[in-house]
Amino acid sequence: MPLPAELDRTDPEAAIALAAGRNSNWGRWGADDVLGTLNFLTEDKRVEGAALVRRGVSFSLAQSFDMDGPQKGWRRRTNPVHTMLDTGTDAERGVQGFPHGIGGADDVISMPLQASTQWDGLGHIFDHGNAWNGRRAGDVVTSDGDKVTGIQTAAAHIAGRGVLLDVGRVIGHSIGTDGELPDGFAITTEHLQATIAAQGESARVGRGDLLCVRTGRLARARREGWGDYAGGDSPGLSFTTADWLHDTEIAGIATDTWGFEVRPNEFDVAFQPLHQVCIPNIGLFLGEMWDLDALAADCATDGQWDFFLTAAPLPVTGAVGAPVNPIAVK
Amino acid sequence: MPLPAELDRTDPEAAIALAAGRNSNWGRWGADDVLGTLNFLTEDKRVEGAALVRRGVSFSLAQSFDMDGPQKGWRRRTNPVHTMLDTGTDAERGVQGFPHGIGGADDVISMPLQASTQWDGLGHIFDHGNAWNGRRAGDVVTSDGDKVTGIQTAAAHIAGRGVLLDVGRVIGHSIGTDGELPDGFAITTEHLQATIAAQGESARVGRGDLLCVRTGRLARARREGWGDYAGGDSPGLSFTTADWLHDTEIAGIATDTWGFEVRPNEFDVAFQPLHQVCIPNIGLFLGEMWDLDALAADCATDGQWDFFLTAAPLPVTGAVGAPVNPIAVK
Amino acid sequence: MPLPAELDRTDPEAAIALAAGRNSNWGRWGADDVLGTLNFLTEDKRVEGAALVRRGVSFSLAQSFDMDGPQKGWRRRTNPVHTMLDTGTDAERGVQGFPHGIGGADDVISMPLQASTQWDGLGHIFDHGNAWNGRRAGDVVTSDGDKVTGIQTAAAHIAGRGVLLDVGRVIGHSIGTDGELPDGFAITTEHLQATIAAQGESARVGRGDLLCVRTGRLARARREGWGDYAGGDSPGLSFTTADWLHDTEIAGIATDTWGFEVRPNEFDVAFQPLHQVCIPNIGLFLGEMWDLDALAADCATDGQWDFFLTAAPLPVTGAVGAPVNPIAVK
Amino acid sequence: MPLPAELDRTDPEAAIALAAGRNSNWGRWGADDVLGTLNFLTEDKRVEGAALVRRGVSFSLAQSFDMDGPQKGWRRRTNPVHTMLDTGTDAERGVQGFPHGIGGADDVISMPLQASTQWDGLGHIFDHGNAWNGRRAGDVVTSDGDKVTGIQTAAAHIAGRGVLLDVGRVIGHSIGTDGELPDGFAITTEHLQATIAAQGESARVGRGDLLCVRTGRLARARREGWGDYAGGDSPGLSFTTADWLHDTEIAGIATDTWGFEVRPNEFDVAFQPLHQVCIPNIGLFLGEMWDLDALAADCATDGQWDFFLTAAPLPVTGAVGAPVNPIAVK
Repeated sequence: MPLPAELDRTDPEAAIALAAGRNSNWGRWGADDVLGTLNFLTEDKRVEGAALVRRGVSFSLAQSFDMDGPQKGWRRRTNPVHTMLDTGTDAERGVQGFPHGIGGADDVISMPLQASTQWDGLGHIFDHGNAWNGRRAGDVVTSDGDKVTGIQTAAAHIAGRGVLLDVGRVIGHSIGTDGELPDGFAITTEHLQATIAAQGESARVGRGDLLCVRTGRLARARREGWGDYAGGDSPGLSFTTADWLHDTEIAGIATDTWGFEVRPNEFDVAFQPLHQVCIPNIGLFLGEMWDLDALAADCATDGQWDFFLTAAPLPVTGAVGAPVNPIAVK
Repeated sequence: MPLPAELDRTDPEAAIALAAGRNSNWGRWGADDVLGTLNFLTEDKRVEGAALVRRGVSFSLAQSFDMDGPQKGWRRRTNPVHTMLDTGTDAERGVQGFPHGIGGADDVISMPLQASTQWDGLGHIFDHGNAWNGRRAGDVVTSDGDKVTGIQTAAAHIAGRGVLLDVGRVIGHSIGTDGELPDGFAITTEHLQATIAAQGESARVGRGDLLCVRTGRLARARREGWGDYAGGDSPGLSFTTADWLHDTEIAGIATDTWGFEVRPNEFDVAFQPLHQVCIPNIGLFLGEMWDLDALAADCATDGQWDFFLTAAPLPVTGAVGAPVNPIAVK
Repeated sequence: MPLPAELDRTDPEAAIALAAGRNSNWGRWGADDVLGTLNFLTEDKRVEGAALVRRGVSFSLAQSFDMDGPQKGWRRRTNPVHTMLDTGTDAERGVQGFPHGIGGADDVISMPLQASTQWDGLGHIFDHGNAWNGRRAGDVVTSDGDKVTGIQTAAAHIAGRGVLLDVGRVIGHSIGTDGELPDGFAITTEHLQATIAAQGESARVGRGDLLCVRTGRLARARREGWGDYAGGDSPGLSFTTADWLHDTEIAGIATDTWGFEVRPNEFDVAFQPLHQVCIPNIGLFLGEMWDLDALAADCATDGQWDFFLTAAPLPVTGAVGAPVNPIAVK
Repeated sequence: MPLPAELDRTDPEAAIALAAGRNSNWGRWGADDVLGTLNFLTEDKRVEGAALVRRGVSFSLAQSFDMDGPQKGWRRRTNPVHTMLDTGTDAERGVQGFPHGIGGADDVISMPLQASTQWDGLGHIFDHGNAWNGRRAGDVVTSDGDKVTGIQTAAAHIAGRGVLLDVGRVIGHSIGTDGELPDGFAITTEHLQATIAAQGESARVGRGDLLCVRTGRLARARREGWGDYAGGDSPGLSFTTADWLHDTEIAGIATDTWGFEVRPNEFDVAFQPLHQVCIPNIGLFLGEMWDLDALAADCATDGQWDFFLTAAPLPVTGAVGAPVNPIAVK
């Protein structure tokens, strides 16, 4: 898939600089801002989102958090390790020392915050040592965590109108891949717009929306095994969508892939260049490894592609990302 | 505070057996049920809840998850330990080895699932070796986790009409404790009903509702320091509310205390007897350590005590409890 | 490789019962014993071991503990996850808040106790619900850990005469596999005796010795990649060595493989049957994933196969196994 | 306790600079050195140490690693959290799915590497952004760990002649504190020399020795409860011993306190100034929270204060400190 003529595959740094320059939101919400594009998610949007609840059906957009997940240890990202502090077996055998027949089970988890379904926080990615809103990376995220834009600052905000674009279904159909985009497929602005057009009015995307983009990559991993789902090749957003992501003024965007943007990236030597534009420069919240399959099937059935979405990150103080169990209600 | 005449402070086991017998929901939703009282939370309730969104204001009912929390190591419950896999300091110094000026931060957490704001799952408590719906505890929760009622089974369900009863404010006012119930204060059915009456129509509680009960205990801990907030004395629900909790057919109940029920418990020698009735016998979802203060202040101002509540537990496979960032939207 | 005539490949349970019956040490050191075969490691053995130090050269027999290890998540065994609480990058940038120019780094680890080089404790394996010395498994190891034979009870004991049998070199040479036994190769008593004979007087094995058996499996994994090193096929001790392991009255035995005994096991359907005899019945300490290569090379050079061995397990209270950095001094 | 006349309590930075200047070992063992004072621990010292084994009695100098330890969360230093992956209770109940009656228990640990008995690595402390041997801190320890002087580089080295100076007993007796130095007591060179003189020839300290200094602080914590044992006031080495620590050319030094040096420190505003001289400038290995009580009692009985000491750190790749189970054999 060719890059637009103005992009040079051999020079990602120049392309990133141009895209960042065109789309930077630094200072837009003041020097102290920690919310970035969540500023677009106003109270009106929550009222609008709640009005979309008609049948009362709810969908969890989270994968399960367990050792059967996709992680393989890359950059010390393991799958979640869940262990028990107390068990029913112990309770039943009477070794717990509690009175009057009560028994209990309790548990512990150890996991990378980005092991599974998650939001990237604004402190997750830097551009030449700069974090969101122009702060120096070392002033924001030390080994004590993110002192400025920690994910807890977003704890109460992410509830509003969600929109699902099933690009896998719409575009996958047109290219004959049966609802699942192949690895390396770069979703362009044109693909997004074509999907909106195909899905109709309920799929319009605008200011303050929480956009979910389904590629079908997770469905394939479920069917074929994880393989390199986490960290490997994948369909995803083209670098060239940076302007559209900025101009639509969405509050956040999530995909069913590990890394949001297309992999391999669209430059000869690159690592997640669209992240480098979106997070530190646009201040855009990115969701990854969301499970959009059941919701997509329902939307295809009733033709309503928008819904009330609550995607409340676990408010770990200073986290640069956080696990989340997003709930869509239609 | 005296127990009702029919209860014998010296015999919790008999009292528990009676209350469990009167209120058991075993078999009510079939032998395979894993949802307990979440069965009351129907799609209608979500439609009803969504209709409560008027202003679009949202509140996170979660405490922050960090080392400054209340845990002191009791039963190996530590506070969450959050560490970084990559930092902004490293990115800024250029030691990360990424191309084109991108840098990243990433993180890990290790924590008890019940360290902070959480839902108890149905596998959390047993009554004489029996788990929810009459299963044997050892058939449900082993060191591999909860194989039957793991919290992931509730992942998509907990969104609906929330109701806040600010018992701390209403009853605390009447007893002169200024909006905060003292430790050891047992909230009875009468207190709950008086609070509903004082708060008015929007505070009615019924089938399928998600009930939040504010005692003021967290506000005191915030002001005075954690002390024994986690595991120590506390206001909370009286053992005698078991019948009301069952009869109202609520879907779940959450408090701003560590342990939901009054501490010390209302028997001479006891440990969480109301849990023993509620979880394995009623199948009731209990939330603990929720932060209800900001929401309560808002409700007191506008007089609307119900709202759309999404309280989606992190779907850790096999977990007997899970952290949650509950979001109330009004 | 055929099993001896008396063993029936289809009936491991009978074979285990016979071997356990012949070799049980239950009661040998009293009903309260927690040390098993470490009782053979007397003070005389330490004097004997120390006298073997001639050149003063020391060898660590530990693998490194890190994410590059062999674990792949089987039974939630991950590789060690090591994260930093404070870094040099932070110190150099001056974000730590310490006075007079001091800076610090600090770190955390999360790991299965048997992720890498380790000792199995006596609570690690059970035979039909029985633990070492005839105790019931549920009386010994609950979710609170091993209350009786926790590895800390061995903390001070494991220092004495070590002996290395390089079976990989001696037998591997004779079967043409160049110093490395192939996967599935079962080391029999005859192989052990032949190795002793080939290595000479310093390789004699007897009461109280700490025996190290090198198969060459780790060397192969180093050369070819981990593959299934942890949990997969491997050379190892034959089930038929149970009597010899008992009769020689060794204090402990360690190998360079993940699981000590040959894999696949020598029965049609089995899982670590020699463990089932050795740990709960003989009370034998088993070491796994030791790195014996450098020591073996030195012993081959100077012809001295015994040495002073200190293999002090990290004394984690209640652990059923523990990481160890064994040090051999010659 | 007055500082020597040349020291100014108000100017730790100047005092540190002077002491560091006088005692720096930068470059002494070449630009690539990662061992610091372990270079003094030659093979001859191991031969000398092994010759001290007479009775064959062994002592573990480690505290137990568990939730009952001294940590209180300071700088995210928790006590070790040990959880089970499999238990005897499960095995006995038959829920593990293994064949022929075998059952197993397995476990996991999560802990700060300096939670209990440990060695500080050479990457643990920096002086004005400089690490051992003059390297820049950010070139040594990033969030990936210590890339240069990680504790695994010392894995095979720390076995040799140990010497115990029971300063608590000798000096504590003379000041009437009954074998335990009070908090804030600064152990000077004169105290060390007086202890050597009192204990006799076997207590001489010189090049390549591993020195253990007992203050009695741990014995007091055991008796009275942890209190502020970890991070609080304590007896310990005076800042003024820096020259002696350098000049004696010891290979390492360990104490029974959390922080090696006296607390409060001997300057008005300071944090561990002796560390700042010892680790990055002298390259000295410091051991903390060792349990020297049983060994001290034995030495007092037989009058032999030296022994063979193996103190092999758990070789966690890139660690700036590591837990250890030191074994003294006499």
